[in-house]
Amino acid sequence: MIGTPMLQTYAQAARLAARALAAASPSAKNTALLAMAEKLEAQREALYAANQKDLEAAQAAGLPAAKLDRLRLNEKVLQDLRTGLRQVAEMPDPVGEIEGLQIRPNGLQVGRMRVPLGVIGFIYESRPNATVEASALSLKAGNAILLRGGKEAWHSNNALVRLLQEALHEAGLPQEAIQLVPTTDRSAILEMCHLSGLLDLIIPRGGKELIELVQREARMPVLAHAEGVNHLFVDESAHLENAVRIAVNGKAQRPSTCNSLEKVLVHSAIAPVFLPRLAQAMREAQVELRGDERTRAFIPAQPASEQDWHTEYLDLILAVKVVDTLEEALEHIARYGSRHTEVICTEHHGHALRFLREVDASLVLVNASPRFNDGFQLGLGAEIGISTSKLHAYGPMGVKELTTTKFVALGQGQVRE
Amino acid sequence: MIGTPMLQTYAQAARLAARALAAASPSAKNTALLAMAEKLEAQREALYAANQKDLEAAQAAGLPAAKLDRLRLNEKVLQDLRTGLRQVAEMPDPVGEIEGLQIRPNGLQVGRMRVPLGVIGFIYESRPNATVEASALSLKAGNAILLRGGKEAWHSNNALVRLLQEALHEAGLPQEAIQLVPTTDRSAILEMCHLSGLLDLIIPRGGKELIELVQREARMPVLAHAEGVNHLFVDESAHLENAVRIAVNGKAQRPSTCNSLEKVLVHSAIAPVFLPRLAQAMREAQVELRGDERTRAFIPAQPASEQDWHTEYLDLILAVKVVDTLEEALEHIARYGSRHTEVICTEHHGHALRFLREVDASLVLVNASPRFNDGFQLGLGAEIGISTSKLHAYGPMGVKELTTTKFVALGQGQVRE
Repeated sequence: MIGTPMLQTYAQAARLAARALAAASPSAKNTALLAMAEKLEAQREALYAANQKDLEAAQAAGLPAAKLDRLRLNEKVLQDLRTGLRQVAEMPDPVGEIEGLQIRPNGLQVGRMRVPLGVIGFIYESRPNATVEASALSLKAGNAILLRGGKEAWHSNNALVRLLQEALHEAGLPQEAIQLVPTTDRSAILEMCHLSGLLDLIIPRGGKELIELVQREARMPVLAHAEGVNHLFVDESAHLENAVRIAVNGKAQRPSTCNSLEKVLVHSAIAPVFLPRLAQAMREAQVELRGDERTRAFIPAQPASEQDWHTEYLDLILAVKVVDTLEEALEHIARYGSRHTEVICTEHHGHALRFLREVDASLVLVNASPRFNDGFQLGLGAEIGISTSKLHAYGPMGVKELTTTKFVALGQGQVRE
Repeated sequence: MIGTPMLQTYAQAARLAARALAAASPSAKNTALLAMAEKLEAQREALYAANQKDLEAAQAAGLPAAKLDRLRLNEKVLQDLRTGLRQVAEMPDPVGEIEGLQIRPNGLQVGRMRVPLGVIGFIYESRPNATVEASALSLKAGNAILLRGGKEAWHSNNALVRLLQEALHEAGLPQEAIQLVPTTDRSAILEMCHLSGLLDLIIPRGGKELIELVQREARMPVLAHAEGVNHLFVDESAHLENAVRIAVNGKAQRPSTCNSLEKVLVHSAIAPVFLPRLAQAMREAQVELRGDERTRAFIPAQPASEQDWHTEYLDLILAVKVVDTLEEALEHIARYGSRHTEVICTEHHGHALRFLREVDASLVLVNASPRFNDGFQLGLGAEIGISTSKLHAYGPMGVKELTTTKFVALGQGQVRE
């Protein structure tokens, strides 16, 4: 148990570190990132030992196998982390770039300089890899980060953060740029939320309850993702083979992720041809179907209730509905969608453009799987999460989304008339 | 007195209007903006009559002359509003632009499309012009806006909003895109703050108390400005004539604004030459000086207390301090500054670069007056306020800052491996 003064001390140290980091050279930051990769290799036995303690405690506590799996550090996980660190080191440094420099009529040169956000609070649950991934992105963007990990990963996170701090130190950067909050009490989350003036941003990653708690309590901006109630609209002109493939990939490739498909809306003109093909493919993928009345006239499915249209299953379940027009599909998505990921399958140019323009979601796709809503897949290089808040970042957040721009103006004595 | 259900009804109507506006053509929006300008001319007698009621009530309530002045609609105010509306109509439409389209290795085309934020809550105090300015920027960006004006401007705001809604209607756009909250009770502010899921953003403009209330209560993102504790650092190599001119312009041109100069830090090597020149110019501008001990060795000034370094005077008062190095100036600004507007006067290239890079403020200037921290002056065309929050917008907010980007992806059947 610690009280507010201790977290304040951590956050104040982070603020000082953030000032040093904002002025640090790209090469110092990259040296630290590469040193982190080397240490993950050199210290792997110590990491496995720390991780073993967490695994044993988790096993004793009866954690389900899937959770144990996410907690485990093995050669594959460390290899992926090393590759990720090297990739982040190779990315261009975002800090200091001046965008849109223009000369005003009075000769004043005005532009926007990309700068770090400052201090980021990162609240997450079991996976210890997130400790390294979030720290690396935060460092590249010139920020300090205060990490509050889950209690299951306590020993692993401590070992990882010690290693990350060693790398910072060797690169001549302040170790307080990456700190682990010294407790996994729930109270630490509330304390972080109340550190206004000391944290510039909080990113919660985890279940709905955690995210809602942080959104309610935080006195500073929060970048969070809502659940993904994601739709595929199969238009009258859709390429049916593509539509079936996208539906199966969206639903079944990894159903537990937030960018999975949850609902299919089918244009009534092609429902008689499309629905039997969809039903067969979903049967082969072991997906349970729920449908509205019109759907159930064509294929066997459980009746879908009003609640089904609101639900993110994260499971091998799919709800299907027949609609008569693109407008009806747009209405349904506006009403039930969660602004996460929305897809249209169509060969009609005007319908594609209209769907792209009018659907309000962090990623809108034409003729492609919703599973592409991911920082790597969209070309950001790496991500710290997906935002469904519309302010600042909407969609996957990479290094650039962990920075902001300030205005700069270069004069030769200009004053205002 | 109204209860939450009524404000919810307004906000729900705004959400529907926002969907229509997001899909509206640039020409429909511009037609509405130009119709607003025409109606401000055609209906000016009715506007003056409504404004007269407010002025009489304000006079009876004993409002000071400066506040009455801000409340007054006259030919000059209406003319400026008309000019502003025409300028906003002429600006390029930000909505629908796709930035950074790239082709991924699998052929998927990925970009970011600029889209409206949705529904904006705007809470402001006396000036009725803000009703028109904020509505125009919001409309251009494709947003709906819910306005909560001050009680002093109640009749003026009602007349203005009626006129703006007529213009929307004539352009075939939903009138609910611009709505005035039907009460000026303080409770309406709290209700707006709690309309989560219905408002995408709240912008409070007014005194510190209002802004802190909204920041504490709001369940959605807030873009607010803190006070401006703004510094000028006069470096050893400064062009002294420029430095004096910038100091006087910054302090005395319009001392009640948040981008005014409040503190001067002087390098000790030039203090003996610079300070007497500064003191004489400030005397002529009727500015009261407060200084640290070293300053007071060179010029007459009241002693500055610790409190002085924290205070935004918004008055003809200036605090002056002698420092020995650029580092000491940077430290002082990091400690006492409010991230608003910071200036260095220097002819030293390296010092200019370092100040630009390391000072954390919404606008950092070299050799120019802090009074340039303004949307018009920096080339945004118009502004809805200055943000000192670092997320989403840092500095003056124009039309672009009232939009966001979503990811769009164009495929031909791509699925994730």
